[in-house]
Amino acid sequence: MLTRLEILPVPGLPEVGPGDDLAGQIIDACLTGTHTDTAGEVTPPVGLAHHDVLVVSQKVVSKAEGRQRIVDPDDPLAHKPLVLEESVRVLRRRGELIISQTKHGFICANAGIDRSNVAPDVALLLPEDSDRSARRIRDAIKHRTGIEVAVIVADTFGRPWRRGLTDIAIGSAGILPVLDLRGTADAVGRELHVTEVCIVDELAGAAELVRGKADGIAVAVIRGVNDHWFAEGSVAESIVRHPNEDLFR
Amino acid sequence: MLTRLEILPVPGLPEVGPGDDLAGQIIDACLTGTHTDTAGEVTPPVGLAHHDVLVVSQKVVSKAEGRQRIVDPDDPLAHKPLVLEESVRVLRRRGELIISQTKHGFICANAGIDRSNVAPDVALLLPEDSDRSARRIRDAIKHRTGIEVAVIVADTFGRPWRRGLTDIAIGSAGILPVLDLRGTADAVGRELHVTEVCIVDELAGAAELVRGKADGIAVAVIRGVNDHWFAEGSVAESIVRHPNEDLFR
Repeated sequence: MLTRLEILPVPGLPEVGPGDDLAGQIIDACLTGTHTDTAGEVTPPVGLAHHDVLVVSQKVVSKAEGRQRIVDPDDPLAHKPLVLEESVRVLRRRGELIISQTKHGFICANAGIDRSNVAPDVALLLPEDSDRSARRIRDAIKHRTGIEVAVIVADTFGRPWRRGLTDIAIGSAGILPVLDLRGTADAVGRELHVTEVCIVDELAGAAELVRGKADGIAVAVIRGVNDHWFAEGSVAESIVRHPNEDLFR
Repeated sequence: MLTRLEILPVPGLPEVGPGDDLAGQIIDACLTGTHTDTAGEVTPPVGLAHHDVLVVSQKVVSKAEGRQRIVDPDDPLAHKPLVLEESVRVLRRRGELIISQTKHGFICANAGIDRSNVAPDVALLLPEDSDRSARRIRDAIKHRTGIEVAVIVADTFGRPWRRGLTDIAIGSAGILPVLDLRGTADAVGRELHVTEVCIVDELAGAAELVRGKADGIAVAVIRGVNDHWFAEGSVAESIVRHPNEDLFR
């Protein structure tokens, strides 16, 4: 069989707070979470299966890990000092927009700090180490259910040259971040050269399509992913590009 | 029901050549194309349904549109003059790598010119107008089958700051390229600000996950996409960022 994928939103995750057992909440939501729409149609639980890929929103990971910081609710720019604290280098500034390199090596707007989907007096920082966050969730699911999954922590980033944002992976566990096809032959037998495919970013973007920003669906399951893609690897090691090999910094 | 997506590779597309009826070949492949793997397992035809999103590789579009150029098969750099011809501005150069802005406004390596999956004496240029290419395929499918689909023409691009390539949309028809959520409320009733999601790029990346580079699967169908996303729009107008609003050029 050729690979066919299903992308399934996971309803039923409760509002996540500091210290919550996020892995347990995700397991419960997968196994029992349903959703009833305005027409009364019910989306049944997604379940949890061997080699599912769970894409988890950065937002709930940060909330569970206590990355909330208190800011002045009446000042829309109150989080800006935090942006500079979380950055190691500012690349561009235009008006209130700061594009910087974060402590993790990500290059993004406002150091990934977010004030949507949180209380007015809260700014939410990125996890300290999203690969570790992903590993913890993956390990807890394996420990408690015996089921081997991969976990991707996803966030919404802009990019230069193209309008619109897409979800990408800021952390991962249990899956190859980049599929290295160099040295394999193409369909006409010619060697493929520059073909390292960033599958965790493609998986994160795919999951965004069913999560939606306004629906509060923080987790999606991608089912059907090639068994060969399940292996150790991290976003920090495989995807974050070293400044020396970067042409746009 | 919450949105659930299926991503289905479409086997059975023949080797595409200049002047081929690509829309007809895609219809045939969707309706009749099967794939038998080494274990004898058969992937049945994908079919074609209302509001399917068809993601088509740039490569077959360029081949059908006669974008082949003859180059010296023994010279791995023989396509470099074409890169400059297809570019309006070189942004960066390192060794043999040229990052330029193409005539279409894309910023990518080697002006999107490719020598993999083609004969050794061929270099393949991007379509002249990939939005038009997408519209033609969409219109032909509607005309011949009565089925309303969206079409995305996808190519594999690198990006600054992150290793690995992802598939993105270089043309689209029948689908909103960017979903504008500005002004809608988040899950806690706070207004979402910068939330324009580039769904055609996320769909293109999702399709790449089942197409694979080496398998010669040039088309994927994404089924289950939200009906509200089907509307007119083009990559050139909605996604290609004007130099004036770009911070990294």
